[in-house]
Amino acid sequence: MTEGLFITLEGIEGAGKTTCMDHLRSLLEQAGIAFLETREPGGTQLGEELRQLLLGHKHTGMSHDAELLMMFASRAEHLQQKILPALDTGQWVLCDRFTDATYAYQGGGRGIAFSRIQVLEDWVQNGLKPDLTLLLDLPVELGLERAGKRSAPDRFESEAMEFFDRVRQAYLELSRKEPERIRIIDASQNLEAVLAQISSVVKPYLQSSIR
Amino acid sequence: MTEGLFITLEGIEGAGKTTCMDHLRSLLEQAGIAFLETREPGGTQLGEELRQLLLGHKHTGMSHDAELLMMFASRAEHLQQKILPALDTGQWVLCDRFTDATYAYQGGGRGIAFSRIQVLEDWVQNGLKPDLTLLLDLPVELGLERAGKRSAPDRFESEAMEFFDRVRQAYLELSRKEPERIRIIDASQNLEAVLAQISSVVKPYLQSSIR
Repeated sequence: MTEGLFITLEGIEGAGKTTCMDHLRSLLEQAGIAFLETREPGGTQLGEELRQLLLGHKHTGMSHDAELLMMFASRAEHLQQKILPALDTGQWVLCDRFTDATYAYQGGGRGIAFSRIQVLEDWVQNGLKPDLTLLLDLPVELGLERAGKRSAPDRFESEAMEFFDRVRQAYLELSRKEPERIRIIDASQNLEAVLAQISSVVKPYLQSSIR
Repeated sequence: MTEGLFITLEGIEGAGKTTCMDHLRSLLEQAGIAFLETREPGGTQLGEELRQLLLGHKHTGMSHDAELLMMFASRAEHLQQKILPALDTGQWVLCDRFTDATYAYQGGGRGIAFSRIQVLEDWVQNGLKPDLTLLLDLPVELGLERAGKRSAPDRFESEAMEFFDRVRQAYLELSRKEPERIRIIDASQNLEAVLAQISSVVKPYLQSSIR
């Protein structure tokens, strides 16, 4: 049995991650691939409790370093309890946000140097990266407008527009550094076009999994 | 105004930290020194929530890496919100456990390499260490016997005797590396002798604070 493929979905608020995750799920189901669907921060019982602390409004003034360490604590638990065991048994893993989000939000957004984040990434992941990352990219105004139509904003969503623009730019910078892994999906298109672009990026991976 | 002094108290379960903290508090009060008394994990609102996750029985199977990252998340918050501001205004800080406990419990106890802990210590503390650490040392059997007379054991206290012996040995190793900072207090003595030893270690610091 070969190792599973690790696919992550990234993007700012309102980029359409939920709909795109639904589409990815269908693609894998149609291809008969066993997979685990999960998310960050969270994905484990402990991780979901950390998610509550991170996304809730109770600790609005938490230090940026504490926030970053909690993100990686949740990630360490997630990798050890769920992601690595799934990949090891040949399952694919679909994860809603992963370490690229940390560089984008805590790096680009909060201003923590990428080099400091890299120290923790190396410490926790020991070189592991997603095999494929779909970056849903769109202008911040459009994303926030779409997100605004949903439920009450969480702590991150309440941040100012400039914050999200720094997040978007950081995501794009990551993609420029690793264009093969981080594929930009133009999420400003109409839904049909977005899903078609996702299909065209993912299908070669699906085909290569059929031996 | 000069910077305050940072004093930490360390030791295994049943070493008598509470009583010794009471004694330290009296010494500082008698000397008219303004100080902040705090503890780890915890010390802030966020830190106390992390403490619940760390010490409660709900997450008994959490990964060692997650545990360590949460300890340092709590510490980053504690340093930024409480310890550094206090020291900066000339207050002394008395802290019940700090990073030496991380080396002892997560390093010696859990088996995480000291070198991996050091990466996080450097990341969070950027060279800051306590000025003085009192290590209450006693045989594990005696400590657990004393601790057993108190309330229900927490998740760490339920660990086996061998675990605590590794913790004790790690503490002693830290003291051998930094004998000037980490002073061993023989906590197997009777209470009067323990407190007298603490007084004799701390008094030179009190005197030097009077100008």
